[in-house]
Amino acid sequence: MRVMFLGDVVGRSGRRIVVERLPGLIVDLALDFVVVNGENAAGGFGITEEIARDLIDAGADAITLGNHAFDQREALVFIERQPKLLRPVNYPAGTPGRGAGLYMARNGARVLVVNVMGRIYMDPLDDPFAAMEREIAACPLGEQADAVIVDVHAEATSEKQAMGHLLDGRASLVVGTHTHVPTADHQILPHGTAFQSDVGMCGDYDGVIGMDKDEPLHRFTTKIGRARFEPANGEATLCGVVVDVDEVSGLATTIEPIRLGGRLAPAMPRF
Amino acid sequence: MRVMFLGDVVGRSGRRIVVERLPGLIVDLALDFVVVNGENAAGGFGITEEIARDLIDAGADAITLGNHAFDQREALVFIERQPKLLRPVNYPAGTPGRGAGLYMARNGARVLVVNVMGRIYMDPLDDPFAAMEREIAACPLGEQADAVIVDVHAEATSEKQAMGHLLDGRASLVVGTHTHVPTADHQILPHGTAFQSDVGMCGDYDGVIGMDKDEPLHRFTTKIGRARFEPANGEATLCGVVVDVDEVSGLATTIEPIRLGGRLAPAMPRF
Amino acid sequence: MRVMFLGDVVGRSGRRIVVERLPGLIVDLALDFVVVNGENAAGGFGITEEIARDLIDAGADAITLGNHAFDQREALVFIERQPKLLRPVNYPAGTPGRGAGLYMARNGARVLVVNVMGRIYMDPLDDPFAAMEREIAACPLGEQADAVIVDVHAEATSEKQAMGHLLDGRASLVVGTHTHVPTADHQILPHGTAFQSDVGMCGDYDGVIGMDKDEPLHRFTTKIGRARFEPANGEATLCGVVVDVDEVSGLATTIEPIRLGGRLAPAMPRF
Amino acid sequence: MRVMFLGDVVGRSGRRIVVERLPGLIVDLALDFVVVNGENAAGGFGITEEIARDLIDAGADAITLGNHAFDQREALVFIERQPKLLRPVNYPAGTPGRGAGLYMARNGARVLVVNVMGRIYMDPLDDPFAAMEREIAACPLGEQADAVIVDVHAEATSEKQAMGHLLDGRASLVVGTHTHVPTADHQILPHGTAFQSDVGMCGDYDGVIGMDKDEPLHRFTTKIGRARFEPANGEATLCGVVVDVDEVSGLATTIEPIRLGGRLAPAMPRF
Ligand SMILES: [Fe+2]
Ligand SMILES: [Fe+2]
Ligand SMILES: [Fe+2]
Ligand SMILES: [Fe+2]
Ligand SMILES: [Fe+2]
Ligand SMILES: [Fe+2]
Ligand SMILES: [Fe+2]
Ligand SMILES: [Fe+2]
Repeated sequence: MRVMFLGDVVGRSGRRIVVERLPGLIVDLALDFVVVNGENAAGGFGITEEIARDLIDAGADAITLGNHAFDQREALVFIERQPKLLRPVNYPAGTPGRGAGLYMARNGARVLVVNVMGRIYMDPLDDPFAAMEREIAACPLGEQADAVIVDVHAEATSEKQAMGHLLDGRASLVVGTHTHVPTADHQILPHGTAFQSDVGMCGDYDGVIGMDKDEPLHRFTTKIGRARFEPANGEATLCGVVVDVDEVSGLATTIEPIRLGGRLAPAMPRF
Repeated sequence: MRVMFLGDVVGRSGRRIVVERLPGLIVDLALDFVVVNGENAAGGFGITEEIARDLIDAGADAITLGNHAFDQREALVFIERQPKLLRPVNYPAGTPGRGAGLYMARNGARVLVVNVMGRIYMDPLDDPFAAMEREIAACPLGEQADAVIVDVHAEATSEKQAMGHLLDGRASLVVGTHTHVPTADHQILPHGTAFQSDVGMCGDYDGVIGMDKDEPLHRFTTKIGRARFEPANGEATLCGVVVDVDEVSGLATTIEPIRLGGRLAPAMPRF
Repeated sequence: MRVMFLGDVVGRSGRRIVVERLPGLIVDLALDFVVVNGENAAGGFGITEEIARDLIDAGADAITLGNHAFDQREALVFIERQPKLLRPVNYPAGTPGRGAGLYMARNGARVLVVNVMGRIYMDPLDDPFAAMEREIAACPLGEQADAVIVDVHAEATSEKQAMGHLLDGRASLVVGTHTHVPTADHQILPHGTAFQSDVGMCGDYDGVIGMDKDEPLHRFTTKIGRARFEPANGEATLCGVVVDVDEVSGLATTIEPIRLGGRLAPAMPRF
Repeated sequence: MRVMFLGDVVGRSGRRIVVERLPGLIVDLALDFVVVNGENAAGGFGITEEIARDLIDAGADAITLGNHAFDQREALVFIERQPKLLRPVNYPAGTPGRGAGLYMARNGARVLVVNVMGRIYMDPLDDPFAAMEREIAACPLGEQADAVIVDVHAEATSEKQAMGHLLDGRASLVVGTHTHVPTADHQILPHGTAFQSDVGMCGDYDGVIGMDKDEPLHRFTTKIGRARFEPANGEATLCGVVVDVDEVSGLATTIEPIRLGGRLAPAMPRF
């Protein structure tokens, strides 16, 4: 089976390329399952119910979030009625919504998706390593799940790589999000898990992590804020990875980057 | 003219691939100038005089450093007699060594190299943005310098991208180091500066940022240290970027990633 | 001569006690000079021109600030015409206002006041230690200045104590602000500088650093914001230190805490 | 009943004053129960079995720790056989030792002691607020416990105050440690819990948080380490709080600081 993971959708420009290109990619690449990180979809900060629906209508089978999960306060409510929307699993007990879901892929496979947040240089949530042990134990690959996809929303490459190794052989794909820059270290880890430190964003790469560059530059040079952060409006690059998962073992056989449009060098999986 | 920048050399495995492959690459790619980040060359922590000489003998025209610059205390001394070794320019006044150097490339061009350290999630040095303004003003591209290469040693993608935009049109290449993972966002910024958020490390990618994975995993899961960090010993991937610089303007015409050996997907500039 | 320093005035409750009590204290304690930290005076965030005037009318000879200096954007403008208002001296060059001022005390003495911000667990400004060396060199105690008062706005006790020792013998008083809790470590350092790690706030101590406790508790337990931070409205405690400065040496002879009103144990200098 | 809590014992100087003065204080103040924070007792870093025994022999009924708990590796072993030694309760499951203990006081009362670590500007452990809810629920004041003493080992005053309010009415004493500076905000919170943001250290206050000032000053000004941190060797100040607990309600009736010896202003509870 083939799955695709698309990185943090940033603002209108990021939404546009995902909505325009995702339906065709599902057909052209014969994708069985698609996950999209949507934590910056609403003007760079959080997600609304309408935007979540647009991403699902375009083909997202699950939407993950991150530190911006609840920037749009309505997400605290509608996440309860939207089973395809996941927030980091290691928020405190009692947080609205859920951090893991088991979904049916187009090929009939059962796909466990977990969204977990790192703690290095991030707000201190519960232990992401212990949380992942619990989730994987509750729904192990090869038993209740035919594929396991983990979105590690984290800043530090060390923490993401440690999570990849912890889950190596027990997940199909462990992929980082949050830095808004795709890394070029996609690989199959020694025990069969596909890994990439960060999948990058779906947004305009002529900016500062997808935001218009003026205010970030002003703050970095003067240390004083002048205006709100606004998403950059130029043409976005769609950034993701495409992974082939063995239908018997649930482990990965290939991982390839995908980058379409905008300023970054294009990449398209070779099949 | 053509320049190459290689990311943080980590331990014996990283040194080996650089020393073995760099001389051939200089010939094959007709490189006029080579910069290597050496902050992790000595067992993962700092650099010794002997290692610096080995890297220079292999073809490095300048060696940059970072937060590990002085982990080997001897570097505080020998940096004074090794003009090709640069530490971050925004260390306090009085720090041994220098943070910028003007070098002669093989084609006769004058190349300004500056090493500067970010402050987001890093130790607080002097303002990197103001420091770069001073360095660029003292030796502007198109006047005293025919090419300007900047190593932004930093954690946050936002800070590196802001530096890229600040210097866009005034440097040939602004490249990030420190995360030990290559990014796939290489591009020519709107005003002609080549940019990549992080160039990655020259080291073993079956580890945690180039270190053997056991101790990092132990610390992430137990929050208690058990042993020292040791570099991972598997085959390294050489990671860098190759940039063509216009000899009139000093701005970039192409930027291409290079990745050789080890676990990462290979990449070789197309000329 | 006798000087008093009052800590971060927080909101309406903090302003009220300062405005009500300061005029009487100046008379009763025969104060020659008064400094007030005003970074949280306007609803907990920054300071307005009107509030600055109220504090000056009540007897403040200088007002220092901190990381909240420019939360009220009007401060970027009126600080230029209000010489008694100081922002941290280690903001980047070009920041509106000034970080040091030389003032005339009621006894005719020339008092240098400097506001400087720490960097540990704070936004990274310029080097506070180098900045203080420059300010003290430009206006040394016993030469251009008869007294030197330094407000170290910082989080970490280590950084504040290091600053105290760096300036010991060259300042009359080095006092910390920012944690909003008075410390009980007031002392004369070995070379004659009065020191206290933090002077505390003038605000309601039945809250969380002077803010109503509901929202902070909600955020600490749920990791999700629900509302804005609002100052706590209960009766404030005025917190400060009173220091006697030798008129020949400019060094301190006594340092005593002052705490009046509200929930904290009262303290009044014994003269 | 009367309890005393003494802050972080730092090095030989700190140990000396505790061992010399604690036996007499137990008699003179008629103390029923004594807790000592020992995380810096062994040369500033951690605790050894011998030192733990010395503190217990001097009268400590329980010893709490903090981020330096396991700096001396032997503590990972002997903590298992020393029931009076507590490490932060919110270390990951499986950590050697325990974070809470129920002890018999000299007056026969059952005293629950909990050591918990904050996360703001600290290493990210499990949620301290949820952890305290669990501990208090398992052994509530007025039911299984006649007194509850909580050591919040944390950097930020906001987190310590939030913990105080969370537990207000459900603990006898919530006291902070870690900053190595006593605060002057001791108070009985509205629902009856005694609170002080930080109890300070038992150590030499002519240093930087109890360490010899040379190396910290060198690092703050040069950003480069030169030597190891060593405890300051001057005469220590013993710092703590003394709290009277109502034997019916288990809530506090008074909280008074105690400071003896060394450089700080002396304080002695008035009974
Ligand atoms: Fe994001
Ligand atoms: Fe994020
Ligand atoms: Fe490095
Ligand atoms: Fe580094
Ligand atoms: Fe403040
Ligand atoms: Fe502040
Ligand atoms: Fe401590
Ligand atoms: Fe500590």
